[in-house]
Amino acid sequence: MTVDLSPIDENLLAEIANMHGMPKGAFNVRKDGELVERHSSAYIDISTKTDNPGIDIRIADGTKGETVYIPVIVTKSGLKDVVYNTFYVGENCDITIIAGCGIHNDSHDASEHDGIHSFYLGKNSRVRYVEKHYGEGDGSGERILNPTTNVYMEEGSSCEMEMVQLRGVTSTVRDTNAELGANAKLVLTEKLLTHGNQTAISNMKVELKGEGSSVQVISRSVAQDDSVQVFNPLVIGECACRGHVQCDAIIMGNAKVKAIPGIEAASEDAMLVHEAAIGKIAGDQIVKLMTLGLTEEEAEAEILDDFLS
Amino acid sequence: MTVDLSPIDENLLAEIANMHGMPKGAFNVRKDGELVERHSSAYIDISTKTDNPGIDIRIADGTKGETVYIPVIVTKSGLKDVVYNTFYVGENCDITIIAGCGIHNDSHDASEHDGIHSFYLGKNSRVRYVEKHYGEGDGSGERILNPTTNVYMEEGSSCEMEMVQLRGVTSTVRDTNAELGANAKLVLTEKLLTHGNQTAISNMKVELKGEGSSVQVISRSVAQDDSVQVFNPLVIGECACRGHVQCDAIIMGNAKVKAIPGIEAASEDAMLVHEAAIGKIAGDQIVKLMTLGLTEEEAEAEILDDFLS
Repeated sequence: MTVDLSPIDENLLAEIANMHGMPKGAFNVRKDGELVERHSSAYIDISTKTDNPGIDIRIADGTKGETVYIPVIVTKSGLKDVVYNTFYVGENCDITIIAGCGIHNDSHDASEHDGIHSFYLGKNSRVRYVEKHYGEGDGSGERILNPTTNVYMEEGSSCEMEMVQLRGVTSTVRDTNAELGANAKLVLTEKLLTHGNQTAISNMKVELKGEGSSVQVISRSVAQDDSVQVFNPLVIGECACRGHVQCDAIIMGNAKVKAIPGIEAASEDAMLVHEAAIGKIAGDQIVKLMTLGLTEEEAEAEILDDFLS
Repeated sequence: MTVDLSPIDENLLAEIANMHGMPKGAFNVRKDGELVERHSSAYIDISTKTDNPGIDIRIADGTKGETVYIPVIVTKSGLKDVVYNTFYVGENCDITIIAGCGIHNDSHDASEHDGIHSFYLGKNSRVRYVEKHYGEGDGSGERILNPTTNVYMEEGSSCEMEMVQLRGVTSTVRDTNAELGANAKLVLTEKLLTHGNQTAISNMKVELKGEGSSVQVISRSVAQDDSVQVFNPLVIGECACRGHVQCDAIIMGNAKVKAIPGIEAASEDAMLVHEAAIGKIAGDQIVKLMTLGLTEEEAEAEILDDFLS
């Protein structure tokens, strides 16, 4: 290991990537804009980009059963870290990618990480992607995470993306874009928790370009205290395709939530559906758990955990 | 009758207001920007506006069981008719308003009617409003209808609005705005059919301002041929309220439909839901009707009629 990890660093890595020590296989751990440690495997090559800060991850055709870890942690106050990570996934792969960013900020200056992640999925490849965002620290400095995620899917590929914002992120603007080729299948799950005065904006644009392509967008969020959330998912169907967008938000305290999901059909063979609901936790759910011995707060926490898990 | 009605006029009035001759009770018939005939009743007073073109309709407290007709027809090519119609509905009323606009255009110049309708509903009043738009004629001139509908609802009032665009409207931009007081209830049904190269844009903004207010928006549309439809309904909940938005569109041929319904909750006691679906007629529905002896075209027509009725 080229850089020693502190207990704070280790805690952040555990929160965002469920990492305890360095993992097996391919990984790249970044801290405060610098490389901590990198490892390539026989079929997964990780190299430093020559144009922008960040890495290229090249996955050989037919790679199956491997997991790549690319977590980022920020512990310096006043740092704005921008990084470009590009995944070139060959054909007929079946892999898992664990990303995520944790910020610990004990100071009064803002800490910011903007990760621009691009994924090129080759024919018939399957990718499972998990990204967790988390902030902590006692300082008044903002913890800002602005992720951009671009997914380009070739024929027959499939991708499951789970993008989660845990506690502690002061402000986020999330941009997610996807283009699907023939018979490609994308399942995009986004889970956001905001509290205090936090703000979250999530923009999504999914273009169903190939015959038989399909997308399912599942957005679940909890807005507590005085936080504000805005959702703008858009699904465009240009051929025989299927799209389903589902946004569910629980609103608490003085929080505000706005959901403006768009569906746009430019073919009579496109079948697009969306649903959205904003409301508070149903009173009878709380009462039910309280009859089992939980306090009102415990019942509420239990329901929220369940909703976001 | 101050102006003779031609068979074309009579046909338009039958299409948009189901009128055959002048109705009983209060009415105002407008043709090509001029008054045809007006009648006030004991409790419903219709007077010419002094500031803008159009009429004020004043309905006395407690008026029940009456129907007001205010249809407009346009048969002159090249005419742009702008009219402001304002309804002041007293308290504890229960009335029906039949509006609508029909355009017959046999020429190559555009005919346009922009109706700005405002409704002030007094406490505990109930209004049923029906508005039909229709265009016909062999000319290449556009038939344009741009309605603006503003509804202000006092405590305990209720309003059912059915706004229908039948065939033949080349282009429409529809703006509908509503503000609901305590326990007010609005049911807004919009049905649109577009064909050929027609375009339709429908913007809606419903503000749930009073405790216990509720809105239900039901949008049903059929887009045929090369027509384009865009829906932007927005429901804002600022208190304990309920909102439900439902957009269903059937797409045929090379038509395009975009639905971007927004819901915005600024109170944890707001419960807002929306659903939207765009797709073609289910194949099995057509097959089912064909086994009953209908041709494919007849089956399709039957399903569309049913969907829009």
